[in-house]
Amino acid sequence: MAKGSKVSTKEKKYVYKFGGNKADGKAEMKNLLGGKGANLAEMSNLGIPVPAGFTITTEMCTVYYKMNRNYPKELNAQIKAGIEHIEKVMGAEFGSEDNPLLVSVRSGARISMPGMMDTVLNLGLNDKTVLGLAEQSGNERFAWDAYRRFVQMYGDVVLDLKPKSKTDIDPFEEIMDEVKKEAGVKLDVELGVDELKELVKRFKAAIKERKGIDFPEDPWKQLWGAIEAVFGSWNGERAIKYRNINKIPHDWGTAVNVQSMVYGNMGDDSGTGVAFTRNPATGERKFYGEYLINAQGEDVVAGIRTPEPVNHSTKSSPDQQTLEDIMPAAYKTLENIYKKLENHYRDMQDIEFTIQKGKLWMLQTRTGKRTAAAALRIAVDMVKEKLIDERTAVLRISPDQLDQLLHPMFDPKAEKEVIAKGLPASPGAAAGQAVFHADEAEAWAADGKKVILIRIETSPEDIGGMNAAQGILTARGGMTSHAAVVARGMGKCCVAGCGEINISYKEKQFEVKGTVIKEGDWISLDGSTGQVMKGQVATIQPELSGNFGTVMKWADKYRTMGVRTNADTPKDSQVARDFGAEGIGLCRTEHMFFEGDRIKAVREMILSDDLAGRKKALAKLLPMQKGDFVGIFKAMKGLPVTIRLLDPPLHEFVPHEEAQQKEMADEMGVSLDKIKQKIASLHEFNPMLGHRGCRLGIIFPEITEMQARAIMEAACELKKQGVNVKPEIMVPLVGEVGELKNQEQLIRKVAEETIKKTKTKVAYMVGTMIEIPRAALTADKIAEVAEFFSFGTNDLTQMTMGLSRDDAGKFLPAYVEMGIYKADPFQVLDQTGVGQLVEMGVKKGRSARKDLKCGICGEHGGEPSSVEFCYRAGLNYVSCSPYRVPIARLAAAQAALKGKKQK
Amino acid sequence: MAKGSKVSTKEKKYVYKFGGNKADGKAEMKNLLGGKGANLAEMSNLGIPVPAGFTITTEMCTVYYKMNRNYPKELNAQIKAGIEHIEKVMGAEFGSEDNPLLVSVRSGARISMPGMMDTVLNLGLNDKTVLGLAEQSGNERFAWDAYRRFVQMYGDVVLDLKPKSKTDIDPFEEIMDEVKKEAGVKLDVELGVDELKELVKRFKAAIKERKGIDFPEDPWKQLWGAIEAVFGSWNGERAIKYRNINKIPHDWGTAVNVQSMVYGNMGDDSGTGVAFTRNPATGERKFYGEYLINAQGEDVVAGIRTPEPVNHSTKSSPDQQTLEDIMPAAYKTLENIYKKLENHYRDMQDIEFTIQKGKLWMLQTRTGKRTAAAALRIAVDMVKEKLIDERTAVLRISPDQLDQLLHPMFDPKAEKEVIAKGLPASPGAAAGQAVFHADEAEAWAADGKKVILIRIETSPEDIGGMNAAQGILTARGGMTSHAAVVARGMGKCCVAGCGEINISYKEKQFEVKGTVIKEGDWISLDGSTGQVMKGQVATIQPELSGNFGTVMKWADKYRTMGVRTNADTPKDSQVARDFGAEGIGLCRTEHMFFEGDRIKAVREMILSDDLAGRKKALAKLLPMQKGDFVGIFKAMKGLPVTIRLLDPPLHEFVPHEEAQQKEMADEMGVSLDKIKQKIASLHEFNPMLGHRGCRLGIIFPEITEMQARAIMEAACELKKQGVNVKPEIMVPLVGEVGELKNQEQLIRKVAEETIKKTKTKVAYMVGTMIEIPRAALTADKIAEVAEFFSFGTNDLTQMTMGLSRDDAGKFLPAYVEMGIYKADPFQVLDQTGVGQLVEMGVKKGRSARKDLKCGICGEHGGEPSSVEFCYRAGLNYVSCSPYRVPIARLAAAQAALKGKKQK
Repeated sequence: MAKGSKVSTKEKKYVYKFGGNKADGKAEMKNLLGGKGANLAEMSNLGIPVPAGFTITTEMCTVYYKMNRNYPKELNAQIKAGIEHIEKVMGAEFGSEDNPLLVSVRSGARISMPGMMDTVLNLGLNDKTVLGLAEQSGNERFAWDAYRRFVQMYGDVVLDLKPKSKTDIDPFEEIMDEVKKEAGVKLDVELGVDELKELVKRFKAAIKERKGIDFPEDPWKQLWGAIEAVFGSWNGERAIKYRNINKIPHDWGTAVNVQSMVYGNMGDDSGTGVAFTRNPATGERKFYGEYLINAQGEDVVAGIRTPEPVNHSTKSSPDQQTLEDIMPAAYKTLENIYKKLENHYRDMQDIEFTIQKGKLWMLQTRTGKRTAAAALRIAVDMVKEKLIDERTAVLRISPDQLDQLLHPMFDPKAEKEVIAKGLPASPGAAAGQAVFHADEAEAWAADGKKVILIRIETSPEDIGGMNAAQGILTARGGMTSHAAVVARGMGKCCVAGCGEINISYKEKQFEVKGTVIKEGDWISLDGSTGQVMKGQVATIQPELSGNFGTVMKWADKYRTMGVRTNADTPKDSQVARDFGAEGIGLCRTEHMFFEGDRIKAVREMILSDDLAGRKKALAKLLPMQKGDFVGIFKAMKGLPVTIRLLDPPLHEFVPHEEAQQKEMADEMGVSLDKIKQKIASLHEFNPMLGHRGCRLGIIFPEITEMQARAIMEAACELKKQGVNVKPEIMVPLVGEVGELKNQEQLIRKVAEETIKKTKTKVAYMVGTMIEIPRAALTADKIAEVAEFFSFGTNDLTQMTMGLSRDDAGKFLPAYVEMGIYKADPFQVLDQTGVGQLVEMGVKKGRSARKDLKCGICGEHGGEPSSVEFCYRAGLNYVSCSPYRVPIARLAAAQAALKGKKQK
Repeated sequence: MAKGSKVSTKEKKYVYKFGGNKADGKAEMKNLLGGKGANLAEMSNLGIPVPAGFTITTEMCTVYYKMNRNYPKELNAQIKAGIEHIEKVMGAEFGSEDNPLLVSVRSGARISMPGMMDTVLNLGLNDKTVLGLAEQSGNERFAWDAYRRFVQMYGDVVLDLKPKSKTDIDPFEEIMDEVKKEAGVKLDVELGVDELKELVKRFKAAIKERKGIDFPEDPWKQLWGAIEAVFGSWNGERAIKYRNINKIPHDWGTAVNVQSMVYGNMGDDSGTGVAFTRNPATGERKFYGEYLINAQGEDVVAGIRTPEPVNHSTKSSPDQQTLEDIMPAAYKTLENIYKKLENHYRDMQDIEFTIQKGKLWMLQTRTGKRTAAAALRIAVDMVKEKLIDERTAVLRISPDQLDQLLHPMFDPKAEKEVIAKGLPASPGAAAGQAVFHADEAEAWAADGKKVILIRIETSPEDIGGMNAAQGILTARGGMTSHAAVVARGMGKCCVAGCGEINISYKEKQFEVKGTVIKEGDWISLDGSTGQVMKGQVATIQPELSGNFGTVMKWADKYRTMGVRTNADTPKDSQVARDFGAEGIGLCRTEHMFFEGDRIKAVREMILSDDLAGRKKALAKLLPMQKGDFVGIFKAMKGLPVTIRLLDPPLHEFVPHEEAQQKEMADEMGVSLDKIKQKIASLHEFNPMLGHRGCRLGIIFPEITEMQARAIMEAACELKKQGVNVKPEIMVPLVGEVGELKNQEQLIRKVAEETIKKTKTKVAYMVGTMIEIPRAALTADKIAEVAEFFSFGTNDLTQMTMGLSRDDAGKFLPAYVEMGIYKADPFQVLDQTGVGQLVEMGVKKGRSARKDLKCGICGEHGGEPSSVEFCYRAGLNYVSCSPYRVPIARLAAAQAALKGKKQK
């Protein structure tokens, strides 16, 4: 309990005060106070000038919803005490007509949800206090402007008059237009004191008319209304959608921060800004920020005016007026504070400040979002600077974010028709068809199209569309605008503030220097240069920086779980090795069946009515399969290679369109009828649960025999040439040990024959996929035969959850949106259900075979939270697609480091 | 250890002696000695005349296979001791030229596998001992006939010269034909001593020629060869197939019985027979049997000569010569023995005997197979006779067999064209298309046809065809012939020994009194009267006997688990109640959607693009659904009714043929294109795992709302009329508690609305199916919302085993045949895998909700071994199709009684 608090020790503490160089809370209390509240407390404790305030805890939010949107009775006294605290520190009085205390009421969740929840500013103003403010500030216009803003915001947010859809009209905007018209002015700033007073009057009348209530003059009533609105906005539609996209639990709740107002719009000796302690795009160790003179903080974030750089170290034209130039003293203070903050937090900070009549106030500090490249550079630099150690550096990088670096970028040699240039707000290369509305972006993307969302500026309503788009282009707003911040968070390419383009929402097009881009036209965005290009520009694989290598080296140092790759070709194998794969965890042999002439032999086999015919066709496939394995073994240079025997049902190898069937008939020299008959006989109602996997090899042992022979002949041949090989032959879709026993005996028979024939000794293993629930349930029996397990979590998810990946589109997105599923279980492993079977499989398997090697080869093997789960479940390795290998390496290292921490 | 045994106490005992009124073994040792061996020992102990012998244990068979077809060294001495024992008791010497001991070598598994394994008779004969036998028997012809039979049998069985397929020629039959031709005779019995000697010579030459070895003259060598052949026949193809059909574990092994020969073919004072202590078809308490004078035992079973009844109490013509008439003394002894045996075993016995020169020898006794009707009658009679108690009576009835009684029989009023009459060998009514070969029966049945297999006589090779057929008709053989015994075991209708029909395998037809029945023609068989009818005769529901009622009453007395039914209509509900169902465990609402006009409304709903359209269509369905529930609730008179909400994917309600789509388009007044488009949009790759179950109700809550309203309106309406109702609303396909919560809230909302509106109090429950593996894995969470669980083991099996029931045909039969699966998991619950999830579901569910009601509604609910599992798993009830309700009641009673025994 903080000293001097009036709160009884028996009562639950819901209110935490800060300001005046001390605070009840601290940075570590983020879960309780939200990110903003915890950091305001921390800054207060550090002696940094923060407008005094208090935080109502996130716990209160949960209690509020549990109590059916009511508050526990002790809250009232605690809030009163909080206001008294502000009054004391700021030397003003809440509701006073002479020296009024005005406050802001803001949300603050554990994790920042920019723009998703409601805020009320200038609270405490009424017909009387406005006069006090006017006198105190010596600026009547300022006071009345603040008042009219407050009434509007209160009406919109607390009284719910904000338009719900685009066709609705905001009553306040309507009045604003009327008054401006009557005054004969165009801009808000041109309105005089009388017009502002008129606005307040008419706003209040509109409230009375629409809601049947008077605008509350009582500041306490205003305060309770605003608190309620902020808590309520936690469950607003937009906020829920944002949490679903960003996988934030719905039961975390938000805190509410009530804080004394300070004003950046009190004149030219005032201003407001946002800055990063290092460059968030590149990671360069340079103080980097933007500010607006005579403006409120919201103006910077909303991107309504394009701000100026705080100093010249930011890429800027020499003629721009920096904060350093204009207000050197305030800038100096800011510099000292940012250094103090970075040293304290030992991480790059994203800060907000306001200068009120020359005095600097800090409004917020938080860990700054950054691009993957910046994250790597900052981590490596900070280790060099001895701010953090290697372990911390490894834990600092978001594995998901690495993806940005591993995917193609524009080919510098490609021809580019650059039509415009904006701010490089979020790096990456994106090409897509132009769309001009967020909902259209979502609809087009749902149809499988790639789109670029183009907006004058973005707003929280556009989140869904931004998520669906390949990239975002805006005409207004800076590097810290909504579009830029959100895009960076999503790891999505964004070019912001591209003022030269003229967007017409009505025509669904933009025009720039005579070029018109209409809806559906292809454009390309380079988020690292800010270039906007016509058409679809070619991409190449990016070169990885030294920082990447350094961090990955550290990761490997602390990592204990292996990382393999899923690769079916020598080329993929090579890419994966370059990314650090330590073997192949899944080589799918069926992909090899489609290449060139092979499909003909495969079809010949399928069409055969007898064993002899099938064997003849398989004999043609043998040398080709063998060649594939030679290539892959060579590429993997002695690393283990897990080869899965034929898995898909045979109908996947025959054409389903009549024209192609005719072609096949001609090619094979049989009648179309025979082809059709065969294809019909292969039809399955539920192919996922049909005649596939080892069920093929059991009914047609000649297929398994051919594949085992191809693998072992390739292995023996290379071994003879001195190339080390470690084949691990994997039987798919085993649900009962008898199936594996059947196939294992056949494989071993062929393997021993080949070894004997070639007089070479090749060590090989025989194991199985665990992808049917029953396999996990009977893993102890299966492990008596299997030398290794590989959890095929794609199919295991489908069967455990009764969910066909191909068919889930009709309900899965809705499930995630409704919160029935926390995430798409095909992307993020369902640890509760499917995970139980993985854990059971490992445990039971090792109960029968102590040294059983266990891995995972579903797509979850490259998803960080799933990798962490695999570590906890005791897997020996994860296997993922080549491009995700670094992500898995990093995630595995983090899992190991976190695991150590738990001990 | 038996007294006087030479076997060291340190050695494993593999040989158990019997005969001479004492034995090493006893009846309880059936698992070790096989059924035959254990009962021979028991009879010896009872002082019944049994030819002396010894049994090599089933354990030896297992060891033999484990040792790669070798024997442990101690076996030799034990067998020597066994032969010495026989010599001593029978007063003959193995290999003696004067007084030779001849033995039979027979298989004897735990469970009888008639004709499936090999037998060698007359072993011990050679060129020298045959002379001793001739002198001793005073019948040179008999001795040489025995010798030539032995050489042939030894060649066939031990030296493997038996033809493997129908086109192969038996070398011995060929020689036999030659010699008969040379002698100018037609029948075997017409051959004289010289010809028989010639046969032996030529048979031996054939063996030398074909196998390159001499026929072994050494009796010990003969004996080891025969033992090896019997053990080898355990893994013969036929035996494996039989075990698969009859679900006999492959690792049980067979025992080998070596026993002194006795001869029923030593002249007219000798004979052999088979009898039942009660009538195996009706259960009537009358000694019932058949014999052949001057014949070997195999002749009766093989059905080569049609035997005579042992007495006149068997249905027989007065002019038939019974055993009682011809050999009254032997018959009297037999009568005393059968009574002794039945009193001892307290069950109906199936006995084999041989009379050698007037002396009666018992060769076998075992529990007799019987029809379901006989089983009931015997059980009830034996309780009356105080031979057994009610509990034993209940345990005596095979629940599976009850099926025979519960299925339709021929309508006595139906017109019948009786074309022939045979023996009523196995009861039941069967109609099918005539086929004349077992493999054709299998092929036709695989095509979904119903067939009657017609054979002159059946042999073990025909097992597969018999199993596939609806019924079996033979021209030769009695009530104890192969066809009759096997058919009764299968619970399949059989008319045997129908001598008047003339079968031509070549023409694939039979002719009787001018009527010709060709392959494919329909015939009907009445297994209870022996009638053979032309065409397909109408059937009716059989009336159940008083014995049935008595046994079911006893069953219910000892049963603790409930039995419900799966019924979707008032009619089915009534049938089930008549069979004793205690509620409905599964009422599938989708079946109601297809009736009459409803399908139109359903399709209208599916075609609607918006909520309003769907609601309009659903409003049409509401009164119809409500009517269904009124009917079902009324039929169930206050018993609980579990109603499952709509489950199948919507595409099941639209036509897939263009013609019907056109019809639908016309009917609905929309374009064919629109219909096609909609149907295409509904297509799913794996509908089993697609948009169905609660996923429909979550995306289209209006469907759930309509169904909940229909259920509750029906319930409230009836309640008002004074009818008691217990609706249990079941949400299908839940895999995550969030899904259930969503639907439960909606259902409760509608229910409370309806209750309020109608001002009636109806108690209802909301629960869920557990049919997705994840539901079982997270049952503790689901039980927080669900008031009851119903395990849908059909789908649970499909998902847990990754096995689509519709598509498994390509490999499932092979899996069962290969022994990979012990049984079809859709018929017999896979206790190892799926069962784990059921147990987990119950346990976890009850951990969250102590009084959670758990049931099963998959088809396993009527399968006895699965019912027993459900009892052990702690389910409150099983639910099955109406006709299986009595089976489930009996199985549940047996489970409870066995459960008690385990304590």
